[in-house]
Amino acid sequence: MRRDLRQLTDAVCADHPDPYWREVDEARRYPQEFVDALTRTGLLGALVPEEYGGLGLGLGDASVVLEAINANGGNAGPVHAQLYTMASVLRHGSEEQKRRYLPGIATGEIRLQAFGVTEPTAGTDTTSIRSTATRTDDGYVVNGQKVFISRVQHSDLMLLLARTARREDGRRPSDGMSLFLIDLRETSGVDVRPIRTMVNHETNEVYFDNARIPADSLIGEEGKGFRYVLDGMNAERILIASECIGDGRWFVGRASRYASERQVFGRPIGQNQGVQFPIAQAHVHIEAADLMRWRAADLFDSGLPCGAEANMAKLLASNASWEAGDVALQTHGGYGMAAEYDIERKFRETRLYRIAPISSNLILSYVGEHVLGMPRSF
Amino acid sequence: MRRDLRQLTDAVCADHPDPYWREVDEARRYPQEFVDALTRTGLLGALVPEEYGGLGLGLGDASVVLEAINANGGNAGPVHAQLYTMASVLRHGSEEQKRRYLPGIATGEIRLQAFGVTEPTAGTDTTSIRSTATRTDDGYVVNGQKVFISRVQHSDLMLLLARTARREDGRRPSDGMSLFLIDLRETSGVDVRPIRTMVNHETNEVYFDNARIPADSLIGEEGKGFRYVLDGMNAERILIASECIGDGRWFVGRASRYASERQVFGRPIGQNQGVQFPIAQAHVHIEAADLMRWRAADLFDSGLPCGAEANMAKLLASNASWEAGDVALQTHGGYGMAAEYDIERKFRETRLYRIAPISSNLILSYVGEHVLGMPRSF
Amino acid sequence: MRRDLRQLTDAVCADHPDPYWREVDEARRYPQEFVDALTRTGLLGALVPEEYGGLGLGLGDASVVLEAINANGGNAGPVHAQLYTMASVLRHGSEEQKRRYLPGIATGEIRLQAFGVTEPTAGTDTTSIRSTATRTDDGYVVNGQKVFISRVQHSDLMLLLARTARREDGRRPSDGMSLFLIDLRETSGVDVRPIRTMVNHETNEVYFDNARIPADSLIGEEGKGFRYVLDGMNAERILIASECIGDGRWFVGRASRYASERQVFGRPIGQNQGVQFPIAQAHVHIEAADLMRWRAADLFDSGLPCGAEANMAKLLASNASWEAGDVALQTHGGYGMAAEYDIERKFRETRLYRIAPISSNLILSYVGEHVLGMPRSF
Amino acid sequence: MRRDLRQLTDAVCADHPDPYWREVDEARRYPQEFVDALTRTGLLGALVPEEYGGLGLGLGDASVVLEAINANGGNAGPVHAQLYTMASVLRHGSEEQKRRYLPGIATGEIRLQAFGVTEPTAGTDTTSIRSTATRTDDGYVVNGQKVFISRVQHSDLMLLLARTARREDGRRPSDGMSLFLIDLRETSGVDVRPIRTMVNHETNEVYFDNARIPADSLIGEEGKGFRYVLDGMNAERILIASECIGDGRWFVGRASRYASERQVFGRPIGQNQGVQFPIAQAHVHIEAADLMRWRAADLFDSGLPCGAEANMAKLLASNASWEAGDVALQTHGGYGMAAEYDIERKFRETRLYRIAPISSNLILSYVGEHVLGMPRSF
Repeated sequence: MRRDLRQLTDAVCADHPDPYWREVDEARRYPQEFVDALTRTGLLGALVPEEYGGLGLGLGDASVVLEAINANGGNAGPVHAQLYTMASVLRHGSEEQKRRYLPGIATGEIRLQAFGVTEPTAGTDTTSIRSTATRTDDGYVVNGQKVFISRVQHSDLMLLLARTARREDGRRPSDGMSLFLIDLRETSGVDVRPIRTMVNHETNEVYFDNARIPADSLIGEEGKGFRYVLDGMNAERILIASECIGDGRWFVGRASRYASERQVFGRPIGQNQGVQFPIAQAHVHIEAADLMRWRAADLFDSGLPCGAEANMAKLLASNASWEAGDVALQTHGGYGMAAEYDIERKFRETRLYRIAPISSNLILSYVGEHVLGMPRSF
Repeated sequence: MRRDLRQLTDAVCADHPDPYWREVDEARRYPQEFVDALTRTGLLGALVPEEYGGLGLGLGDASVVLEAINANGGNAGPVHAQLYTMASVLRHGSEEQKRRYLPGIATGEIRLQAFGVTEPTAGTDTTSIRSTATRTDDGYVVNGQKVFISRVQHSDLMLLLARTARREDGRRPSDGMSLFLIDLRETSGVDVRPIRTMVNHETNEVYFDNARIPADSLIGEEGKGFRYVLDGMNAERILIASECIGDGRWFVGRASRYASERQVFGRPIGQNQGVQFPIAQAHVHIEAADLMRWRAADLFDSGLPCGAEANMAKLLASNASWEAGDVALQTHGGYGMAAEYDIERKFRETRLYRIAPISSNLILSYVGEHVLGMPRSF
Repeated sequence: MRRDLRQLTDAVCADHPDPYWREVDEARRYPQEFVDALTRTGLLGALVPEEYGGLGLGLGDASVVLEAINANGGNAGPVHAQLYTMASVLRHGSEEQKRRYLPGIATGEIRLQAFGVTEPTAGTDTTSIRSTATRTDDGYVVNGQKVFISRVQHSDLMLLLARTARREDGRRPSDGMSLFLIDLRETSGVDVRPIRTMVNHETNEVYFDNARIPADSLIGEEGKGFRYVLDGMNAERILIASECIGDGRWFVGRASRYASERQVFGRPIGQNQGVQFPIAQAHVHIEAADLMRWRAADLFDSGLPCGAEANMAKLLASNASWEAGDVALQTHGGYGMAAEYDIERKFRETRLYRIAPISSNLILSYVGEHVLGMPRSF
Repeated sequence: MRRDLRQLTDAVCADHPDPYWREVDEARRYPQEFVDALTRTGLLGALVPEEYGGLGLGLGDASVVLEAINANGGNAGPVHAQLYTMASVLRHGSEEQKRRYLPGIATGEIRLQAFGVTEPTAGTDTTSIRSTATRTDDGYVVNGQKVFISRVQHSDLMLLLARTARREDGRRPSDGMSLFLIDLRETSGVDVRPIRTMVNHETNEVYFDNARIPADSLIGEEGKGFRYVLDGMNAERILIASECIGDGRWFVGRASRYASERQVFGRPIGQNQGVQFPIAQAHVHIEAADLMRWRAADLFDSGLPCGAEANMAKLLASNASWEAGDVALQTHGGYGMAAEYDIERKFRETRLYRIAPISSNLILSYVGEHVLGMPRSF
């Protein structure tokens, strides 16, 4: 099964080779053609249950698709949000919400790519968000500012976290936040301002100025939004880990091939241990990260707790892909910097995952405090 | 089952706490009492098939025992050779050889702890060994020198690799070596000279001066010894990886406990990320190495090729345990250097495994050449 | 004096703040306005002797200018070639050549920015270059291909290394190469094709197709070009080290300021050792690299051998600036990826210097072989 | 001059080669013969002013002696305390105290090797010490416990820090501590209990039980002891850095020699970049640390502030020597663990300096807070 998913994805990727992604990157544009092709395979609806027209697959299965996209030299970023926002909708959305959106998501008519949590003054401290959704007669009025909200322009729906009660009024800081599934096509008062970044991530600041949304946008109960979002975070970490592993394999493949072929001083540069060993080392770290990713995915799909494993998978995988990217760049010498070799593009892209969606430091503090029982460090 | 093995080992270890190992280390002596206690449980015969009086367990099972010894603060070194020399005997020994030795090994009456491969001028280049076993009427005469042969003094048997034909006469450098199972109790002409090292490994130079051994000492066929030894090397790497993981868990446990309890500047030092994060990082690396160890052990026990996995497990585990040891030492400050805290003892011990039984560099070259297809680098 | 040079450079930089460089980078264009302003100060002629209208400064002095440009957030790349190609011209150019070009270089009318050594099939093995300069009645005809020749479009002159005799005809591989100072404004048969890279380096492939150059383009004697070029390489490494140190200081400054100001979880993130310590560590490494750079520059300006020191300075400085860049990016979280914060721009730029003009591996092999006396490793 | 100091030290060391130190280490004994020989050269009184019979040298000079001892394979630990406790005595001792002790120290009749600051419950937080010196009619009564006080058994004098006023009674936590120069030969109530450690440091717990000392033991004024001790800390860090640099050079020398000579697979192992490059890298780091050590020593000897430089020198040097030690061990393979090769001895010894006299973490926090202006992190 997973072999089939892999082959299906590989086939789509084969039609979108390096020059395609290079052009998309240079133009800082959305890979519409690739996303359309992927949509036609149904893979974008991988996690949508069969009763709503999707493939009804597990997270581990879905992770194969994302890994394959990156392992083929592409970038799963433009589609991954659709997969990891799904957990919140599936687990906590109403039957009515599911029926309204899931079939369209499964066919690709509806895009759910926007995940609106981060704010400028909150950073990783999610409970500090200040955006508000105030109850009105027929719905809510949203005000506030979000940042690093990627691909809003290419999304029909947004999953939005906002305060429906003040932080100081709750028992815990995480109380009082609610989760909404907003239809951006029907919402006014939303201003999107692109942020130019090192990568083609099409990320944005999003300003809500008295944006009115209907009452049935609410996911689950008022005030429980933080818990619903948490549900999706482990999924997100496992999927990002899978993308990193795809990146890592691509880097190692390119580096070992180039090292075997490139002749300097009358012999392949890969014959030099100074070139060969760092590539081998990166490979070992990717393999180790991959085992952790599968352990986390298996736990997730079994409904078992997987916080430690998902976090460790993300940490190991993002470190390994960065190591592999750095090694691939160094192995290629000056050509590593040249766009034509594609190393520099993926080098920039993979760097993001040591920062987002959670920084390496926060994972270490999670492990230190919650796994090893040391005191909270911040 | 593995849980039982773990508990059984833990129970033996509980009777031999830190001060026991500290004393053994300071005296540079053999932990006879511990080995006796372990023998009584039958665990030393773990790999001996049931028909010969052993437990008939797999390598993965046996690795649980070694890991537990080290995770309890002890040192599995004094017993591990018995487990990884077993593979060669089981797979290639004659029925007669098995019947003669295995029952005694299972009960602990016979010790098979000595593995005689390395030589001063050969190093990791095993095919360069110069020890010879020359055919006589009724057996062989052995001459030559071995080095780093641990615990010969505490072993009844030795597995010995020696040349029965000259390197230049074979088709391949690895031809012409033969494997012998020698009964040291009945062999004269063997001179053992201890090498003092940083750890209590009781390792030795062994000189063979016209040592006569009977013909039935030969394992399998003449000239195929190298291949027989190779069979055991993956087992050895997996078991050593398991010991490293045991070490790593012990270090992380001690470090995180000390960091949580030790107060400086009015608060536990583990509240400082500069203390906490390196411990957490080491933990993550140990967990990753452990997954690779299990993958390798499962392949081994299924009779599938596991060279890449066994090597990667050894590399990851020995790096992780060293990282953990270094972090534990640093966390304890001056007390880390004090014998009383036991950190320094295990810190010295675990360092060995980045060198032996195979160096990290050779593993990287294996991965670079045989897994990634780059040119041979030496 | 050096304080004056620093202040003069700082003043020019103050007129070209972050947004200037950001725009130049995004447009992938030459910073003409900045170069013009710098030219007006005379700093671009820093190394031209006073008798030719320059400042007659030493390499150490010149390095202050480059460091300051990068420490202010700019990029000294567009001007550094003018400084390190100078050594070859000053030491080996004829009086006639000096009189023809140096005064114009001092005033900025003439740009000497192009250094034509590297070729696609030669890489770091310079003696393998294949470009030829064939003697004719009145000069030479040049044929061949160069790669990674930066800013040819903005240079009037090019220093070119080409073979005037075949490698196999010389006693040593380094014989038979000659150095030319070509006036690009008067030379036809030169085709320049830009290479798009990760940074705004305006680098190019340059094709020579029967390009005719006059006889007096030759620097020094025929066949000795390689030795002349070597003279300039230590200068280049010292100057690149200085730029890296400028980068490093900029990164550390930005990171420590951001860490002190940015509040998450109710306190500045720099209060977390996980954030603070890596910044402090990077600072220490930059300071150490800086001491080595000054040692190398002092030796160079005293006419003493400085190969080891120049190489070590380049290695230490490029590693330290990369460490600092990586830390600055990580410290800024998502904002580190945003163009508006400038971190990502300089992060991409400083990465180049672990590769060019000489890779870290080649420096290590230089130290291993020529400083420590180990065998040649490639 | 420094060349003379170096040669003089080298000559003493030549009479005490590797086997001498190996025996001293194994016996965990004081290198009395070596210290005697060194005393006869007058080098132990290097810092004692000429008017008191010493050499009247600067700290930089003295650091040459310590570096040379370690670079020759020895261990300067048994003498270094005499040098760095000197600063406090010279700067703050009375004329009377100097006249009583300095001449004897210069000739070697009197040993000042014991520095009594650290306590079990204080660690690096010196202001938390609890030892008290209570005023009596004719002196003080000392009570309390010190830890990690090295070589008390071989010292006539001890510099002791104790509270003469309670911490809570001072304006600042550092008020109320006083410094004493105690003559151990005439003091009863001092109980010394050796601590067995990983190295032959002869360190101890020291218990003061109503130990009576005369009034003129007090150095300078009551309550200002902490400031006097601080004066000596920069000296200590610079001297320790010098010892680490000596260690580092010894490791690199041994490793590069062994790598050049040891043949495996038919060629010297140093021809492998996997072996050669880490040695070269360690060398570069030692050279960089050495430049920082000289910068710090020059500032110290000029009476200028050198806190940042002394700390950075210690950090860089202890990291570099540890890197070099680890590389030397790895280069030697199994022989690195063997006492006979001396690597393992110095490997254990040099590890101490990443912990003592100040940990790497505390240096990073010093740099982060006091050099870079980030918030206090603990």
